[in-house]
Amino acid sequence: MPHEPAHPPAGDRPAPQAPDRQPLRVEVLSAVFQVRTIGDDGTPRLCVLLHDVNGARDNDNGGSRATGAPGGPWALPGGDVGPEETLAQSARRHLADDLDVAGLAHLEQLSVFSAPHRIPDTRTIASTYLGLLPSDAETTLPDGAVWAQVDTPDRAASALIYDHGEIIDAARHRLAAKLSYTNIAFALAPERFAMSELSEIYCAAMGYMVDTTNLLRVLSRRAVVVATGTVGKTGRSGGRPPALYRFADSELRVTDEFAALRPPM
Amino acid sequence: MPHEPAHPPAGDRPAPQAPDRQPLRVEVLSAVFQVRTIGDDGTPRLCVLLHDVNGARDNDNGGSRATGAPGGPWALPGGDVGPEETLAQSARRHLADDLDVAGLAHLEQLSVFSAPHRIPDTRTIASTYLGLLPSDAETTLPDGAVWAQVDTPDRAASALIYDHGEIIDAARHRLAAKLSYTNIAFALAPERFAMSELSEIYCAAMGYMVDTTNLLRVLSRRAVVVATGTVGKTGRSGGRPPALYRFADSELRVTDEFAALRPPM
Repeated sequence: MPHEPAHPPAGDRPAPQAPDRQPLRVEVLSAVFQVRTIGDDGTPRLCVLLHDVNGARDNDNGGSRATGAPGGPWALPGGDVGPEETLAQSARRHLADDLDVAGLAHLEQLSVFSAPHRIPDTRTIASTYLGLLPSDAETTLPDGAVWAQVDTPDRAASALIYDHGEIIDAARHRLAAKLSYTNIAFALAPERFAMSELSEIYCAAMGYMVDTTNLLRVLSRRAVVVATGTVGKTGRSGGRPPALYRFADSELRVTDEFAALRPPM
Repeated sequence: MPHEPAHPPAGDRPAPQAPDRQPLRVEVLSAVFQVRTIGDDGTPRLCVLLHDVNGARDNDNGGSRATGAPGGPWALPGGDVGPEETLAQSARRHLADDLDVAGLAHLEQLSVFSAPHRIPDTRTIASTYLGLLPSDAETTLPDGAVWAQVDTPDRAASALIYDHGEIIDAARHRLAAKLSYTNIAFALAPERFAMSELSEIYCAAMGYMVDTTNLLRVLSRRAVVVATGTVGKTGRSGGRPPALYRFADSELRVTDEFAALRPPM
């Protein structure tokens, strides 16, 4: 088909050396979630790992702010990507080195945030990650870092720098979506759990009540959770010790492909 | 909680000016798929849009290769991101300007490819996209661009530059996964279609036979496709004119959230 292209194909793209290329920075940012029991009412809440942008400097100045009450503004953990690491390796390195957080049960790429002026001065493209920590994983955060409740009214956008609030919203949206068609809750739950406990985790992550009986029915039928044959401690409300369950897999999988579309065995 | 961090939090990350930052390039690459009838057997196949890396230069030299038989190596369309555009805008711009391809029915971010030496010399991070074009959308490609069959045996990795073969595999994997739990096929199908036609599209995209009757049952029950009340032309095998269907939505949605987990109305 003889066709004169309006624009010639840019055949030199694979090895470009455009002289006018602007300075560009790539940063890795992670929204790490954990369901934690905070506050006095004992209700588990979805929390996100943040650090005080000014926290570290205060430490250097004699720890005047190291009283456990940093004031923000707040930022997601992350930073530059090193010359010999992938973005995922960089995300894990920043979490481990800067915030002493390791042992994520799940880490996946979220969107890339690339609005031209999302950060003043240098054009910076943020490659973002969603990380999940089981509810029973213990962390010891350095000064200036906190687990902040995702839904708290005072998590005003103004308290977070740049577009970090949008990134948290995107991570929360992804998590809620995947809770509905994958087994991703394995990365938020303890290894063994009572169904009432799992129900509280779903509820915290999705933002609305989830019926424990329905949840057990759906997750059992799809073989997402299986009974361990053991029982846990009697809960706050008394009664019989609850049966304990575990997730069948500890890797992400879609739990309900259309039956008609499954590949032949 | 008094805690001396092993590594101080890098409080200057939000406005970094590390002097030793390496030169970094971000490229946008798109794997654009269309189900096309190629070859003599009339079977629809999943095809991907590629361009000949050397094609444009040959055009400049008098069109010696402009015979409709470019030889590769092949690359995915894309290139640098402009100072005032997002990555998605950049992806669409490269497709329109370089390959005269517009009218994508769906474009979504795929993974970021960030292996340190995926391209020699300059560290280049590829932010990749999956684009879908309906099977009845017409394209007029410039010389040096082709629709290549994704599953063809001669689509050897060596015929594609760098990691572009991996990117195509990732795009294909994403598409197959989403076909099984979302309505994403709306972006591959014509506006109205016989179920046998949709079945062929699923089959081409997923790589295995899909039963038309089962497909109709599953997609109807989930209200993914609806009858238009009209009929199409009688097919090759004769018989009654087939009923025509359409997708209920032309935006991506998950078609089977766990019933128990749906938000309250």
